[in-house]
Amino acid sequence: MVELKSDERIDYLLNDQRRQIIQSPTVFAFSVDAVLLAHFTYLPIKRGRVLDLCTGNGVIPLFLTKRSQAEMVGVEIQERLYDMAVRNVQLNKLTDQIDMIHGDLREETRRFNQTFDVVTCNPPYFKTEEPNKRNQNEHLTIARHEVYCDLNDVLKACSRSVKSGGKVSMVHRPNRLSEIITIAKSYKLEVKRLKFVYPKRHKEANILLVEFAKDGQPDLKVEPPLYIHEENGDYTKEMTKILYGEEGSSAHG
Amino acid sequence: MVELKSDERIDYLLNDQRRQIIQSPTVFAFSVDAVLLAHFTYLPIKRGRVLDLCTGNGVIPLFLTKRSQAEMVGVEIQERLYDMAVRNVQLNKLTDQIDMIHGDLREETRRFNQTFDVVTCNPPYFKTEEPNKRNQNEHLTIARHEVYCDLNDVLKACSRSVKSGGKVSMVHRPNRLSEIITIAKSYKLEVKRLKFVYPKRHKEANILLVEFAKDGQPDLKVEPPLYIHEENGDYTKEMTKILYGEEGSSAHG
Repeated sequence: MVELKSDERIDYLLNDQRRQIIQSPTVFAFSVDAVLLAHFTYLPIKRGRVLDLCTGNGVIPLFLTKRSQAEMVGVEIQERLYDMAVRNVQLNKLTDQIDMIHGDLREETRRFNQTFDVVTCNPPYFKTEEPNKRNQNEHLTIARHEVYCDLNDVLKACSRSVKSGGKVSMVHRPNRLSEIITIAKSYKLEVKRLKFVYPKRHKEANILLVEFAKDGQPDLKVEPPLYIHEENGDYTKEMTKILYGEEGSSAHG
Repeated sequence: MVELKSDERIDYLLNDQRRQIIQSPTVFAFSVDAVLLAHFTYLPIKRGRVLDLCTGNGVIPLFLTKRSQAEMVGVEIQERLYDMAVRNVQLNKLTDQIDMIHGDLREETRRFNQTFDVVTCNPPYFKTEEPNKRNQNEHLTIARHEVYCDLNDVLKACSRSVKSGGKVSMVHRPNRLSEIITIAKSYKLEVKRLKFVYPKRHKEANILLVEFAKDGQPDLKVEPPLYIHEENGDYTKEMTKILYGEEGSSAHG
């Protein structure tokens, strides 16, 4: 049995009885962004190595192991979240497949030497100088604001972890697309796929999914848009399918 | 009366009885891309100066004069197209508002010294090394392929023509977005608005509309997507409105 701390609870990972996840409303609970990133990510099915930076409670690797037998590594800087991630791996009996590392991605990735086939990351979105968006809670602040790592740190860490020709997939805010593309290019990460997510039809996009290829050539696809909600607030059919249906339409061998 | 050459015809500019346009199927006829660029472009209404690079037969200025009294200048390198553009200005009695220049944008823009409020451009989309897409017809080849100017030339020309804080709007192919953003940034053009156009729902985007601000800060909006066709091939309601309805929802003072 895995121990729970006072503010934690165990949820099923969406409606999937095969995966449970320890969460805490005051420390870390996964968002729709994590679900979308996991769904968007191309994965090797049988073998290979996948790295998840800013892994939080390990939600991305937990999702990805549902459709890949690749070896997975997560890196988390907050000890409290790292501890949840380790227990999540134990709870789901995935200790043979997932390895969690407690550390700073700026340091830990130094030794990865471009050995990963795929790197995923759901980084902090907000610049630290955006105080109105800054959360009072320290754990949530670190997860959402560029306190310990900024976009440059994250893309540099991705680049030195992934193989030449390997993929990096990230979820972020669309308003930062220009910075994302130019910083990524400075680390030889070339955008290959973009998907914009809109809260409803006729609204501006509020989530960006982006995939880079290390040492890739400039030539990218913009996938069909995804709408989260219908006008009445219900999830759209497509979003319902992502949340409760198939396990990632973009999976490939 | 304006003279017509043997392969030319006069069309109404969409269904608007106020604008006519000389076109030629073998030389130049405007595309939906031009309509979308004209519609997407923010314009000063009463005064100011607008520059259209790669103006072809002058279709963009003809559209823009429907909703702006700004002074307009078009630049076209092909003498045959420039000649059509001049006759189009005469045909529509717009010689007081639109000035056409026959020349190479790489040279002509040297003297513009950042004097324009808005610059528009529907440049050649294809690299010259894409021979399968290369058109046999010389006029069409020059309009569609980077024979006389490439993306770098175009963005450099835009940047030195537009005022600090002024807007540049362009239509292009989404697969070149990464190049567009990085080259633009090198000329101090920062992306502020993106709109992706999809041929149908559930298809990849095939047209990109992008607006830059000269000397702007990184922070951009991704507008709601636009679909051109319904599943049955009809224009969507939104596209019908752009083609035959209002004159640019994005117009502002």
